[in-house]
Formats: sequence, structure tokens, C-alpha cells
Amino acid sequence: MTSFAPAPPLDTLAPTLDPTRVRLLDLLDQRQPGRSLPGALYTDPELHDLDLRLLWHRQWFFAGTVAEVPEPGDYLTVDLGTVSVLVLRDDDEQVRAFRNVCRHRGARLVSEPRGSVGNIVCGYHRWTYATDGTLRHAPQLVPTAEGGPDPACLSLRTVAVRVVSGLVFCCLAAEPSADVDAVGEAVAPYLDAHALDRTKVAAQVDLVEQGNWKLTMENNRECYHCDGHPELLRTFFPTWGLREDQVPPRLRASHERYLAAEEDLRVACEARGLARDAVEDLVDRPLGFRVQREALDGAGESFSPDGTRLVGRLLGDLDEPRLGRATLHAQPNLWLHALADHVVTFAVLPLGPDRTLVRTTWLVDADAREGADYDVEALTGVWRATNSQDAAFVELTQAGVADPAYEPGPYSEGERQVDAFVSWYVARMREEASR
Amino acid sequence: MTSFAPAPPLDTLAPTLDPTRVRLLDLLDQRQPGRSLPGALYTDPELHDLDLRLLWHRQWFFAGTVAEVPEPGDYLTVDLGTVSVLVLRDDDEQVRAFRNVCRHRGARLVSEPRGSVGNIVCGYHRWTYATDGTLRHAPQLVPTAEGGPDPACLSLRTVAVRVVSGLVFCCLAAEPSADVDAVGEAVAPYLDAHALDRTKVAAQVDLVEQGNWKLTMENNRECYHCDGHPELLRTFFPTWGLREDQVPPRLRASHERYLAAEEDLRVACEARGLARDAVEDLVDRPLGFRVQREALDGAGESFSPDGTRLVGRLLGDLDEPRLGRATLHAQPNLWLHALADHVVTFAVLPLGPDRTLVRTTWLVDADAREGADYDVEALTGVWRATNSQDAAFVELTQAGVADPAYEPGPYSEGERQVDAFVSWYVARMREEASR
Amino acid sequence: MTSFAPAPPLDTLAPTLDPTRVRLLDLLDQRQPGRSLPGALYTDPELHDLDLRLLWHRQWFFAGTVAEVPEPGDYLTVDLGTVSVLVLRDDDEQVRAFRNVCRHRGARLVSEPRGSVGNIVCGYHRWTYATDGTLRHAPQLVPTAEGGPDPACLSLRTVAVRVVSGLVFCCLAAEPSADVDAVGEAVAPYLDAHALDRTKVAAQVDLVEQGNWKLTMENNRECYHCDGHPELLRTFFPTWGLREDQVPPRLRASHERYLAAEEDLRVACEARGLARDAVEDLVDRPLGFRVQREALDGAGESFSPDGTRLVGRLLGDLDEPRLGRATLHAQPNLWLHALADHVVTFAVLPLGPDRTLVRTTWLVDADAREGADYDVEALTGVWRATNSQDAAFVELTQAGVADPAYEPGPYSEGERQVDAFVSWYVARMREEASR
Repeated sequence: MTSFAPAPPLDTLAPTLDPTRVRLLDLLDQRQPGRSLPGALYTDPELHDLDLRLLWHRQWFFAGTVAEVPEPGDYLTVDLGTVSVLVLRDDDEQVRAFRNVCRHRGARLVSEPRGSVGNIVCGYHRWTYATDGTLRHAPQLVPTAEGGPDPACLSLRTVAVRVVSGLVFCCLAAEPSADVDAVGEAVAPYLDAHALDRTKVAAQVDLVEQGNWKLTMENNRECYHCDGHPELLRTFFPTWGLREDQVPPRLRASHERYLAAEEDLRVACEARGLARDAVEDLVDRPLGFRVQREALDGAGESFSPDGTRLVGRLLGDLDEPRLGRATLHAQPNLWLHALADHVVTFAVLPLGPDRTLVRTTWLVDADAREGADYDVEALTGVWRATNSQDAAFVELTQAGVADPAYEPGPYSEGERQVDAFVSWYVARMREEASR
Repeated sequence: MTSFAPAPPLDTLAPTLDPTRVRLLDLLDQRQPGRSLPGALYTDPELHDLDLRLLWHRQWFFAGTVAEVPEPGDYLTVDLGTVSVLVLRDDDEQVRAFRNVCRHRGARLVSEPRGSVGNIVCGYHRWTYATDGTLRHAPQLVPTAEGGPDPACLSLRTVAVRVVSGLVFCCLAAEPSADVDAVGEAVAPYLDAHALDRTKVAAQVDLVEQGNWKLTMENNRECYHCDGHPELLRTFFPTWGLREDQVPPRLRASHERYLAAEEDLRVACEARGLARDAVEDLVDRPLGFRVQREALDGAGESFSPDGTRLVGRLLGDLDEPRLGRATLHAQPNLWLHALADHVVTFAVLPLGPDRTLVRTTWLVDADAREGADYDVEALTGVWRATNSQDAAFVELTQAGVADPAYEPGPYSEGERQVDAFVSWYVARMREEASR
Repeated sequence: MTSFAPAPPLDTLAPTLDPTRVRLLDLLDQRQPGRSLPGALYTDPELHDLDLRLLWHRQWFFAGTVAEVPEPGDYLTVDLGTVSVLVLRDDDEQVRAFRNVCRHRGARLVSEPRGSVGNIVCGYHRWTYATDGTLRHAPQLVPTAEGGPDPACLSLRTVAVRVVSGLVFCCLAAEPSADVDAVGEAVAPYLDAHALDRTKVAAQVDLVEQGNWKLTMENNRECYHCDGHPELLRTFFPTWGLREDQVPPRLRASHERYLAAEEDLRVACEARGLARDAVEDLVDRPLGFRVQREALDGAGESFSPDGTRLVGRLLGDLDEPRLGRATLHAQPNLWLHALADHVVTFAVLPLGPDRTLVRTTWLVDADAREGADYDVEALTGVWRATNSQDAAFVELTQAGVADPAYEPGPYSEGERQVDAFVSWYVARMREEASR
């Protein structure tokens, strides 16, 4: 027990191309525009490991919302494969993020998805860190003056964090890109009116889908399968993603209602200065995104069977319940709907090559009272049903793409954004694998 | 979304010998006649993958019986590792087989072991295939005239299928051998009188054994362990596989009964023109097989405790209940017993290196009425018990062959057919690995 | 079935350094004194396989106690990964050990942790071995005179076994070291008075910890975490492992009681000729060990809430209940506490890279009567609670060391023996990997 020099980092990657990377690049080259990915990219454990190392460990990803960490000491955890990230509001009310690993013998610091602490205390040997990550107390450790380690070198390892309109993004890279700031500027005109910083969590549900994370994202990028979502179709126009001339006859009536609702929405947005038109930059940037405000069917207010509002109090300073849904999609792992009465966010988190966590969070005004202003079952009903249906679709697809008979098939008109997501994935991986 | 050229097939194998094949060939060389296989051939995941690719994906295998798909639209599914095969009777009453993968984004088409459909409709985006595999309808797909894909190129991928005396064999190879036809000719004189095409499924049970598929097959090829099958031994002569001079004293009385029953059987078969003598070609052909008709103990009619019949109606045009069992064994994955009153088939399907599905199916005359002519519990009792005992034997053996202390031991007299199966496996794999 | 020449052994290792060994040696070089191991050594399946092959398959390990096999035919089994060892008392009352694999087709011979047999009979084909491992009977085997195998070559494969003060150690190596004898001599003065050969098993509990075996051993080598063991701290002095000048103020009162109790213990031991002082040889020998007798808190007799005895009859010829605990720690896989009224042993057995079996056995005087002399719930209460708490600590640590953010951190004063264990592991693996 003589030396306390810091250990070298163990997760550095050799710069030379290993055989798995060669295989990855070969598969990326095989991908044809307008078609899904070669099967191994959805199933192979070694390639999944490259997804984590080259993409997830280097890009900004969505971790949660400020509503999950409203007070100092409140935390949430996000796991990406074997990596665990601890997001926490410090004593100065700043949102910070740390690697969720004790600097002593490596014990996981906190295991719950959400909670609250005074200090961060390791459950094993009571090493105690302040909410800014500095080591406050380590029992029995040899003092620095006597040759022991310097506590200043034993702070928790930090993770880059950025809050954008109440959305918390994290990045594990040592030098994260500035991409998140530009995306933040683009989405603020759509989301800020929903005032996520004045919301609270009404419900959160973790669902494990038996499929690769990319299948979960692809599934979300089209309504081509929306016949499988009868609850959602009460308020969701099924012509989503189609150009005017692509709307099939059977969806024509629905589309007419959509056009009328869109016109009403345009008027309401202009009167209130709310951004509405689609802004899309899906393929070319690391944090590919698309944001837009769209009308809802029925009463047009919320995700209820008849489209009327689900929460008595509106968000922020909104004065009108019929504002459709402001939708943000961001790659690799977020989509959300911001309505006048609530926001629902979806975080996609890879657990393994064929297992993915979908964490759904419903946010309502911080002063809304459960029972009086909203009912959790009613609030969450549509998306609990829809998520469950999507999990079944993803599982069927995972089984099929793992079959050697699978060949990437052609996308239809309504799958343009799936194509964009897959093209983004190919571009990101090709670039990162060459670094 | 510009190009719809067909993707190249992804499951082609490099012609050069990879290290795993070198290891396979080395292990095959180590195998000594008269002894079981080196342990790694029962346990190693990479070698199991070669079992699938070199043997299962190239040879004919047993998929089920015509009784499981009696009407147009009726289907059954068979899974070999990650490969799923859909066997279905088409609208012209032909039995066809397809890869169970949608040509769009790869979703598994049907997930149940058996069922019935009008068209084959993918549950994800409603792509609809006729029962002959052609793509009938794909919503929103860009028309071919506008640069979209040609639906004629999006038919389901076909699998070779051959019906032999009511048994359905499939082959995944692009150019399947004619072997199945020769075997079909050889077994017809034994099986045709049992008229499988006039039977129905009385019961089907899927059992997962915790062992390699070869251990399941080896276990079935000897009655050396039949002391562990008290129910079966009520009607099954335990001297099976022994030559006259090999019968041990304690089995002498049983053997005397056997000889007498065999003589009765000879007379009954000759009177009816039923084939009886063993025909065996186990080692040298891809679809190694053995067929024979043998007497049963007790009343000699069926697998009941006292040997009396289990089904009131006899099969086909048979007029005599005491006809023993016509037994077919075919490699890689079938054995069956055809009795005067019912047929029971066993399909062996690899799930992983140490997990194997045994699907047991009891067939009775199509007009037999459950409750009146037969009782399902009684009909299935002996083989449910026997399968369960065999599953325990296979699990014990899997644990042992995975132990580095395992060395292949010597077979006894009664294990001649185990030796033949293992020799067949070595010959097939050696040949296929060199291709 | 022509040749019965013995098969070559299949588990010999190539002498050249494969890439995994190179990686192992590199990671061993990275380890810094005074810090825990690089993460991959706790998590990587291939490196775990080297732990088994280079260390567990070559060193002496603790298998159980003579109290578990008191009579001829009594056996216990111990599993190390896929290896199963059968320890059994033969008809001449000698303790023997065998590989738990039938010499025929490899079936596992016995599956239970403990039991009793007349002969060792394989459940598959009734091959029958005497308790000395010789093949007594193999039905239907071709006689040697007719070209069949020589039964003398089909005895069970033996495993080296040594009984040391009632503790059974085994070694899978062909030429085991004499190390165990020297350790046996060193520990006898501490353990012999507890007369393990006159005890019986009062209880045995198998617990699976979700962590690497080394984390289980490390966790046991310090009381730095003993705040997490409230039950144990009723009788266990928490200053264990600290030098006088390292005792923190909050533990001073406890330490004063400890010093007084130690003085009483010194007097009692000297009066009875019981060894007491620590003997430690943890790092430099294959079977690293530490033995010592130490006082207990409270009444000082046993692991009860108030420290009073848990068993009415004392062990062996002991005349005094207040003799503290004689503690033996031996690497790779044993610790035990011998008290005046009972002995509790812990065997650590790797199941996989992240799963470890901890088998805890409580021994009492052979004539003690359950219900009258002892109560099983009371006897086992403290260590069942403590084991359960330790399992949670190990699971937290496994999660953390698998995280790429983990870096080996510095040990505190109280973790000197953890450091010794890790240093022993590094030395053993470095030496064995170079052989």
C-alpha cells in the first residue's frame, strides 16, 4: 500500500481499426438509401458495443427533465449499457451530472431511477461526496500529509450536462460538441411556452422492449403502422409523414379534418407568437432533430378519447387549451409531445443488443393537484397502451432481423423519417469509426 | 429513397476456412469409432453455429405432418436457431414453405406454432402476401412505374418442401438434394397403410430439453437406458438394439415374449402386404434413416398400460389392431411410431447449444371423436412420461459433457445406432465443412 | 465400434501465450499496490475462464468438512464453473474425491450438494462404481477378452484430497503442491481443540452473490464496511484490521472493551495451551492464509445478540465457553470461525464472472440435540443476516467495476488484508500464466 498515483484510464480505445470496426464499416457500406439496415447492425453484440462506444459515449443524449430534479439533492439516474449517469441538482441549484461510481472500490453510488440525497454517500464504506462531486469524507483514509491520496483527486468523475427548455442532455465525451446549444435555440420557440421548469412529474413508467434501440427509434418515426394504435388514433392524425398527394383515399376524410384543424392552429399560434412550422435537421448533425407544432383530432386539446383536456390547469402562462402538440424528435434517443395541459417525454436507453428501456414521463403544472386537476390513469392511458403496442411491434421486428432470411426492404412514402434516422445513424457511425 | 435494387444476400459464407472450422475439423478427427463425441461439439456456441449453418441449413429436416395443415391457409412454424420456417397449405391445396420474415422491415410474420390465415398479413404494416407467397398489397409503397420496387421481387423467400407419406420435410438450401425422394420410396411400404393424410392432430406438446440436439437424438437411439422408462416398458421390448446373443439373462423372458410376438406380427403383415423387415441406411446418406415394423409387448396393439388399443377407430383401411409399431428414424431430427390406432411423431429442433425443442404430435383418424373414440390423457400418457424422463437424462449428460473431465467413453452392444448417428454426424460435418 | 484405445485428454492447454493471456498479463501489470484491480479482471468472461484454468484448476481449494461426510458412502459435491467434484467417504472410511462425470457417455453422476450412496451408480445407464472409484459393473459392455475396453481404465478420474483439522481441501492438478500440508501444520494448534471430526452439520445455506468471486473474498477481508452489519457488530469488534494508532475516536470505547477482552482471552488460552497469536502468510504462497484467535464482544462466547453461547454442548473437550473465535482465512476460497460452542465455515465457489456461490455451514457437537441443545434459527441468525448484507455490497460493487468509469481507488488503513488478497491474486496469476 505504498503508491497512490492515479491509475491510467482503462476505457481508452486503440486508434487502429480492429476487425469489428472493419465489419461495421463494411455493413454501413452495404446499407442502401430507402431501405432498412443490414441485420447484424440490429443484433450483433460486438456491433452493439460499438454503438455504445462510438455513438452513445460521444454524443449528447436526453437524460430527463428539470421537473425530475426540482430541489437541491434531487437526482435521477440513466443507464447506457454498463454506464450509469447520475444527474443531480446541487446545493446551488445547478444541474450537474456524474459517473455513478464510487472512487474507492467502485461501488454503484445510487441504484434508484429517481430520489433525493443530502450528500452522495456510498452505501458500502460511507465515502461521502458533496452535491458538487467533491469528496467530503472518507473514513480511515491515510492523510495526504502521510503519503495518502489527495482527496481533490478523488472527486466524482463529471459528465457534461446542458439544460435546454427544461430538457436535460448529457454527454460522456471529454470534449462535447456545441451542437446541443444550437438545437436548444431552435426548439425554444416551440417549447418555452410550456414552461417545463414550472412542471412536476405526474407519472413515470419504465418499459423494456425486446429489441434493438434503433428499432425503437425507427418505429417511432412513422405512423405507417398506426392502425395498430386504436387509442392513439382518436387524436393523432394517421396521415402524419405523408405529403398531400400521398394521402390514400381511405384516409381522405381524416385528412380534411386535419387541414381544418391545422388552419385553426395557425390562427391560435400567430395570435400568441408560438412557433409552428417544422424545422428539421435530421441527417447531418450529431444531435439530429425535428420540431413542429401540429393539430390534434377531436376536441384538439389533449390525448384523451375525445380530445378534451386531461389536466385542469394549463402549463406556464398558456390561456388556450387547443394548441395541438409541439413535437420534438431528437437523435439518438428522445421524442416528446408538449400540449397545453401536459408534456409527455420518451427517453430511449439501450440495455443490450436486443433490449431497450423506454422511459415515459408525464409532466403537469407544478401546482396541479392529483385527483382534483388530473387523474393519473386517464392522463397516461393512451401512451401506456401505445407503448405496449409498439413494444410488440419492435419484438416482432427484432425476431425477424435476427433471421438470416432478412433482407433490408424498401420504405414506403410514410417512412421518410425512418430513412432519415437510418441515414443519420450510418453517417454518425461512419464518421466516428474513422476517428 | 432513390434506389430499390435488391440487397445482396447477407448470409453467404466465406469459402475460406475460418478458425472455427479448423477447430471443428480437428474435433471431428479426434472422434473415435465406438465412442461418443468430444465435449466441445455438444457445448461450444461457435461450433453449434456451424451445426446450424453446415448441417441444418443445408439438409432436409422434418417439419411436421400434413395433418397439421389440412385446409388451405392452415400453417405451422418451425424454428431452427434464429431461422423460422412457415409451412402452409396454399389455396390450391399444395403444401408450401417460406422464410417467416416480412420483405419490408423484416418483422416475423406469424409467431404461433400452428394456425390458419386467409392471406399472410404482416402484423406491423399490413403488407399482405397470398398463400403462394406473392406480395398482394403493400400500403403507400411507391408504384413501380414511379421508381418504386417491383412487387414481383418482394415475394416471400421460398423454402424447399417435400411431402413423403404424409410427412413434411423442408430444406433451406438453394439446391436441395434429391435424397428425400429416395427415402420416401423406402418408407412408403411401412407408413402408407397408416394413411397420415386421413389423420388429424389429437395432441401436440412442445418440451424444451436442457441439452444439445445431438444428445437428444443419441438418447433416442438406444434402449440401454430403458430401465428409466417404466411406463414405456409395459409395451416396449427392452432388448431393442441387441442381437440374439447379446440378450442378458435378466431380459431372457422378455425376449422370449418378443420372439413370439414377432412371429405373430410376421403372419399378420404377410397377410396384409405390410413391410416389416428393417431397412437401414444411417451413416452414408444425408437423410440417414432406419425403418422397421416391430411387435409390441402385452396385447401388442398400442402404447397403453396393457397394450390394448387407445383409439376406437383404426387408421386408414387397417382391419387389425395388433400390428405393432412401424418405426421410422431419420437424421437429423425425426422419429415416429405408426400403430394401427395412432401415429406419434417427434421433431427435434435446436434452440441453442444446450437447449433443444422436442415437439411430439399424436395423430388419430380424422373421424375419431375425442371423448368417444379416444381420451387425450390416456393417448399421450406414456410418451409424456417418457419424454420427461429423457429430458432429465439429456440434462445430466449435457452437464457432464460440459465438464472438462469428460472423455468420450465406449459404447455398449445396445448402442450400435448411437454409434451410427454419431458417425453420420461426423461424416456430414466433415463433408460440409470442406465445401 | 472397433477401437477402445483411451481418448486423449481434451482440456490440455496450449503452452503458447494466446491473446487473452497477453491481455491478462497486461492487466496484472496495470494493478497498483494499495488499489483494487482493473475492472476487466472482475467482469470479462474470457479472463474469468483464465481464473478457473490457471488458478482454481491448479490450486488447493476448500471443499467442505469431514462433518459433511461422516459415514462410508456419504458425499458432498462442489462445482467450480463447469467442473464438478464429488467428495466421498469410501468403504474404508477414507475421504476421496472424484470428477463427477460418468466414464461412459459423460452424465453427471450425482447432482445434489450432499447425500449418501452404497455404490456410485450413474442414473443414465446404471454404470456402477465402487466408493473407491473403480468400475464395478457396466451392463452389456463388450468383454475385454472380446476386444472391449478394460474396466480398469474406466475408473472415475481422481481428484487430490487432503484433510486438515477436519477441513477437506481438493486440488484438480495432476501434481498438486505440498502447500496444504504446511498450512495444515500451522492451523492445527488453533483448530484441533474444536474437534471438527466430532461435529455434525446443524445447518447449511447456499447463497448466490451477483458478483465476481474476488469481490466476495475482498469484501470479507475488511470490517471497514461493518457499519452495514448491525447484527454482527453485537459481538464483532469493528476495529478489526486496524493498528492501535489507527483506531478512530468514535471506535475508541469499543476498542477499550476489545483490549480487556483480549487480555482475558490470553489468560484462558495460556491455561489451555490454545494458540492465539496471528500467523499470516497471505501473499507469497499458493494457499495464502491467516489464522488467529480473537476475543468477541458482549459475553464473548458466541455469535448471539448478547454474546452468550448458542449451543448447550461445547465442542471437543473444551471446558470454557468464552474462548472468542479462532478465525482461519485461506485463499482462494475459505474463511471460518471456530468458537467454543460451534464452528461456521464459508466456501466461496465461482459460478460465472459475475455470480458466486457462498456456502455457509454451521457445525455443532455430534451429540448436540436440535431443540434441546441448540435452535437452528438462533444459531444461524447473525450470519444469515450478514451474508445477505454482504451479497448486496458485492452486487453494488460488481455493477460499478463493470462501468467504464471505474478506476481502481486507494485502500484505507483497515483494508490491508484486501490489499494482501489482491496482491496474492496478481502474484498467483502472473506466475501461472507464464507457465
